[in-house]
Amino acid sequence: MDDRPIYFAIERLFADYCAALDEGELEAWPEFFLDEGLYQMIARENFAFGYPIPLLLLDSKGMMKDRVYSLRNANIYQPHRYRHAQSGIRITARESDGYRVSSSYIVVQTLNEGVSEIYQAGSYYDYLVHSDSGLRFKERVCVYDTSRIPTLLATPV
Amino acid sequence: MDDRPIYFAIERLFADYCAALDEGELEAWPEFFLDEGLYQMIARENFAFGYPIPLLLLDSKGMMKDRVYSLRNANIYQPHRYRHAQSGIRITARESDGYRVSSSYIVVQTLNEGVSEIYQAGSYYDYLVHSDSGLRFKERVCVYDTSRIPTLLATPV
Amino acid sequence: MDDRPIYFAIERLFADYCAALDEGELEAWPEFFLDEGLYQMIARENFAFGYPIPLLLLDSKGMMKDRVYSLRNANIYQPHRYRHAQSGIRITARESDGYRVSSSYIVVQTLNEGVSEIYQAGSYYDYLVHSDSGLRFKERVCVYDTSRIPTLLATPV
Repeated sequence: MDDRPIYFAIERLFADYCAALDEGELEAWPEFFLDEGLYQMIARENFAFGYPIPLLLLDSKGMMKDRVYSLRNANIYQPHRYRHAQSGIRITARESDGYRVSSSYIVVQTLNEGVSEIYQAGSYYDYLVHSDSGLRFKERVCVYDTSRIPTLLATPV
Repeated sequence: MDDRPIYFAIERLFADYCAALDEGELEAWPEFFLDEGLYQMIARENFAFGYPIPLLLLDSKGMMKDRVYSLRNANIYQPHRYRHAQSGIRITARESDGYRVSSSYIVVQTLNEGVSEIYQAGSYYDYLVHSDSGLRFKERVCVYDTSRIPTLLATPV
Repeated sequence: MDDRPIYFAIERLFADYCAALDEGELEAWPEFFLDEGLYQMIARENFAFGYPIPLLLLDSKGMMKDRVYSLRNANIYQPHRYRHAQSGIRITARESDGYRVSSSYIVVQTLNEGVSEIYQAGSYYDYLVHSDSGLRFKERVCVYDTSRIPTLLATPV
């Protein structure tokens, strides 16, 4: 079987996903998920030991939209910009309706003073399925190596 | 239409471009551009608000060669080495003679003391066209998130 | 000649290689090499001037396994986790039995306190050959720009 078309489709999805967050288009972010999609951000040690204590858990597109609304309107936090370096995409399993995919990310953050620093390094563990609008996330679990992150803001990566 | 060949060609061009800069082969850098090519480096806030105040603007291959000559012979700056992490390539529009392409970069700099730090994170906004020597830049606009960069040197990224 | 299949195979190999190291699966690491494979980590200035003083030189899969055993059992070092950003893959030459390939890496390290920092930036210069188990390293030479690295540990990157 030729894996190149599916890897190509995944690369395009990931590039669009990162661009939406890096360009600050938060409203576009929930659209990468199925309606019943899951987004989770969890520390490596909790993930490794099976402790179900994520920093962020949103289990529907509706919750993601609420989160974006809240980030835009209610939360007070310092303006910042993300920049993703994404690499190492691997299909790790094929399910009846989609693909398990893992990859690596390094997110650099630039605060208002103009200094860029590593904000978070980690892995994405994804469950991708084909939908009418193309490849979408049924699950995106972000497992961050970096545990010294400002937990209050928790903008999606 | 199968986009895979053009994405593959863009990936090869970008890998060659980054390697030239990361290996210090500055003389090879203007050759990635058309004769009337444009290279611009501009801060995110100026770009976003439409202020035409780039840190660096070179609007022909001749000017780029002059810049390289000047970096090699006249300018005094600390030796440094760049390392690009490039990802998130997206064709955002098709023009009659080429492609609008955006992507992300994180450039790590290593100074003479041997410490590596994030020098600049940002986006490339490119206009690529097919020429006799292959795919080339009609425009490369580097919009950097990081505004605390040493502006005197301005070696191309 | 269509280079896309070989580039695709290299991308998959590199993604698997980085994942093994980033997930801490050190035992899987020697399996990416031929039995008589070479792994070398050397500072940019030594490499550039032809000084044969690598930080780490292992010239068989057996030596690599010994190194892993030693890292697991004998060496005392602070727990850490790596995260690779790999990009810029280029086939630079074709040999009768394989390919010379160069690429760039930035490795971020997260120590036990949970802070992520750039550990090492550099280039991979590889010699890849087809073996019965797929594409494997005959040589992987890691040339690091960053010379201020803790040399005692020298876990492979």
